[in-house]
Amino acid sequence: MAIRSQSEDFPGWYQDVVRETELAEPSLARGTMVIRPYGFAIWEAIQRAMDDRIKATGHENFYFPMLFPYSLLEKEAEHVEGFAPEVAIVTHAGGEKLEEPLVVRPTSETIIWATYAKWIQSYRDLPLLYNQWANIVRWELRPRVFLRTTEFLWQEGHTAHETEAEAIAEARMILHDVYLDTVQNVLAMPVHVGRKSAAERFAGAVETLTLEGLMRDRKALQAGTSHYLGQNFAKAYGVQFQSRSGELEHPYATSWGSSTRMVGGVIMTHGDDKGLRLPPAVAPVQVVIVPIAKSDEERTRVLEAAQRIVADLPSHRVKIDDREDLRPGFKFNYWEARGVPVRIELGPRDLDADQVTLASRLTGEKEPTPLANVTARVAELLTETQMGLLEEARAFRDEHTFRPGDMGEMAKLLEEPGGFMLAGWCGNEACETKVKGETKATIRFLPLDPTPVENACIVCGQAATEEAAWAQAY
Amino acid sequence: MAIRSQSEDFPGWYQDVVRETELAEPSLARGTMVIRPYGFAIWEAIQRAMDDRIKATGHENFYFPMLFPYSLLEKEAEHVEGFAPEVAIVTHAGGEKLEEPLVVRPTSETIIWATYAKWIQSYRDLPLLYNQWANIVRWELRPRVFLRTTEFLWQEGHTAHETEAEAIAEARMILHDVYLDTVQNVLAMPVHVGRKSAAERFAGAVETLTLEGLMRDRKALQAGTSHYLGQNFAKAYGVQFQSRSGELEHPYATSWGSSTRMVGGVIMTHGDDKGLRLPPAVAPVQVVIVPIAKSDEERTRVLEAAQRIVADLPSHRVKIDDREDLRPGFKFNYWEARGVPVRIELGPRDLDADQVTLASRLTGEKEPTPLANVTARVAELLTETQMGLLEEARAFRDEHTFRPGDMGEMAKLLEEPGGFMLAGWCGNEACETKVKGETKATIRFLPLDPTPVENACIVCGQAATEEAAWAQAY
Repeated sequence: MAIRSQSEDFPGWYQDVVRETELAEPSLARGTMVIRPYGFAIWEAIQRAMDDRIKATGHENFYFPMLFPYSLLEKEAEHVEGFAPEVAIVTHAGGEKLEEPLVVRPTSETIIWATYAKWIQSYRDLPLLYNQWANIVRWELRPRVFLRTTEFLWQEGHTAHETEAEAIAEARMILHDVYLDTVQNVLAMPVHVGRKSAAERFAGAVETLTLEGLMRDRKALQAGTSHYLGQNFAKAYGVQFQSRSGELEHPYATSWGSSTRMVGGVIMTHGDDKGLRLPPAVAPVQVVIVPIAKSDEERTRVLEAAQRIVADLPSHRVKIDDREDLRPGFKFNYWEARGVPVRIELGPRDLDADQVTLASRLTGEKEPTPLANVTARVAELLTETQMGLLEEARAFRDEHTFRPGDMGEMAKLLEEPGGFMLAGWCGNEACETKVKGETKATIRFLPLDPTPVENACIVCGQAATEEAAWAQAY
Repeated sequence: MAIRSQSEDFPGWYQDVVRETELAEPSLARGTMVIRPYGFAIWEAIQRAMDDRIKATGHENFYFPMLFPYSLLEKEAEHVEGFAPEVAIVTHAGGEKLEEPLVVRPTSETIIWATYAKWIQSYRDLPLLYNQWANIVRWELRPRVFLRTTEFLWQEGHTAHETEAEAIAEARMILHDVYLDTVQNVLAMPVHVGRKSAAERFAGAVETLTLEGLMRDRKALQAGTSHYLGQNFAKAYGVQFQSRSGELEHPYATSWGSSTRMVGGVIMTHGDDKGLRLPPAVAPVQVVIVPIAKSDEERTRVLEAAQRIVADLPSHRVKIDDREDLRPGFKFNYWEARGVPVRIELGPRDLDADQVTLASRLTGEKEPTPLANVTARVAELLTETQMGLLEEARAFRDEHTFRPGDMGEMAKLLEEPGGFMLAGWCGNEACETKVKGETKATIRFLPLDPTPVENACIVCGQAATEEAAWAQAY
């Protein structure tokens, strides 16, 4: 194992962890990745948790084609401006040049709203509360596994509503009841929720809501976004419905997405110099049992005891590492790097004493535990790990949230140690651009509800309209 | 509702059912489809059942990129010959012409085996037992929703083994323990398992195993295939491992796939002139409750009773159709067309008598049932429906399996009524081609294990090597 240290070289650490723990690897086409079984199992756990919440809040899944005519993209002006530079285009198929080129979806508002035009006739057809799990292609010039890849996996929700108020409430409900709940309680990632500034909005949205976490290198990561789209797409694709009062109206829309990027968020929120630390809720292996034996006889005895422990933990994901040609010390490091929350060490001397040794990936502590208590203590340790990772990350985030007094201080803090900078903003894009130019930091979020503030804009000194959170970001 | 009858116009019936029950619809790019929520929920149930079995038999999921260099496809000669005519090609991305065009995966053997070259070094790395859920693009000239679409969803398994025997056993295990189990016990589709003739094999396979069902129009449908690939892909992509004896060897491969086409199989195996009939295991709604009420007071009382029934059936998918502006008769037809296995009719007179009326989609029968027995009787009816659909389809299939004495009789039977024709075959492709030319029928399967027969080839009269099952097919 060769994993660089976080403090020395964070991007190098990230690369090493992803490679050494076999989460993913770059593939042949530019910016694409293979998600390996261990990485994919994490994604499956996230996906299941998210899908359960999407359905529990009244949404159904559907599936739209990945390919659609390029001309469709052009109907919403801001949208095409935002996405045209990064789309992949199919020009040939079935051995012939196509009459009209097809785009590989960079997101699906266009094809979905072109179809909603057929599905929506009357207020009785509303709301439409739908979601899809799909692959997306956006051409990336600086790809980075999980964080920014040419192809990624995601879910995208697309809803249509009778009224503006209902659509705005939907976008917020998704932010809280689906995204925040999953990200905090499953991924154990503490995140701020807020609004994006106009410059950072989704192309075609009236309002973009976001979840922002802080990684161990003090850079922010957007973990999901929920957009209120107003009537933009309804108008662009000619979607109208007969309202309760008999008039023809355009419905109001939301869309919201979260992706395999969240796997990158888990790695960079919790990982340490030994490798991954996985929240039990998404860990493919929650408990690993390492048998320690010198003879075949000892081995048989220890493995039998290990099987009994597995049988006593039927609702957990438990693995016995019974590989014969590897030493226990190697296995300890191996599973530590893979972020398994609890390790059980089990040798003949432990069995003689009717005990095992439990090791926590969160604290690094080892505790001898009577065999009779293993089941209960393992369950406790898993809960402690799930909570502990969240608490640790929250404390880290809060320690790296600053209120700089002026631009000079903000620039310095962004340089070292980095983190979220809370400061007044006049609402002017020029000030936002200036900060970006000087510090690479962008406004990560504004308060969910615009809240007037007393202080001045940290950039121009004019009256601030609200407080913004700036950070360098992925 | 306007659904044509099966006997009058089977393709028309299929189209009508798919449209009227909102399973799917054609989309903008040639041959693509939108899978609507009701259709997608059926797919999700199939997917869950299949995924459970794939994992229970020791496989893990991963995910490979959808785009890869065209040149990769060309390394396995038969494979490129089979797939090149139907691939879609990305030539532009990120605003520029690509140096090398990318293919949208028509299947993933090539990219996966090019990567296995890195993963496989020693016999200790074997077997690799992996699967992925993915979208696939194959250009279709005669598209048909679910059955033959330009883009479809599927799972594809890709395994690598030390020995030929192990790989052959894997391909057969998948056929039986994953595919046959899911298709018969979940989709209630009776299928034959067997081998494909050389002409019908997957491009690049040594042996293709298949599951073949019979649809209500007496045409066969391939419900899944499992391929033994020998060392073809290992050789083409330079995959070698150090064997137990220290030599460098090529591993042996399998691949196996099943797709959204199975939804079409469910429709055409069980459907009748009223619409769908869904096996409870894949029905998005297993039980629908239709309240019958004339006044608000009656409505309140009936809905309360309906809620209690829902609460008593927590492990079933139960829906109350409480739409106010529709008559009960409309709702009966609506849910019958959608194939819901059990309907509960519930009015004030029923409640006065402490009973409900249960209606079975399988038999069409209605039975008054005491409220106290509803839970037990519904569970029974669902089991009866799951078994009954399989039995009915099996009887239908067996009634349409013939042993024609000569080509004339076979051609006549294929014309009317259609079905499986069992007859001797000399093993010569010329005879196979002749049958196809004269009757449009192909060899759907040969016995799983080649079994010598006494009779003559039904085409040329030479000695038959085995018995083939011919049919017209989707």
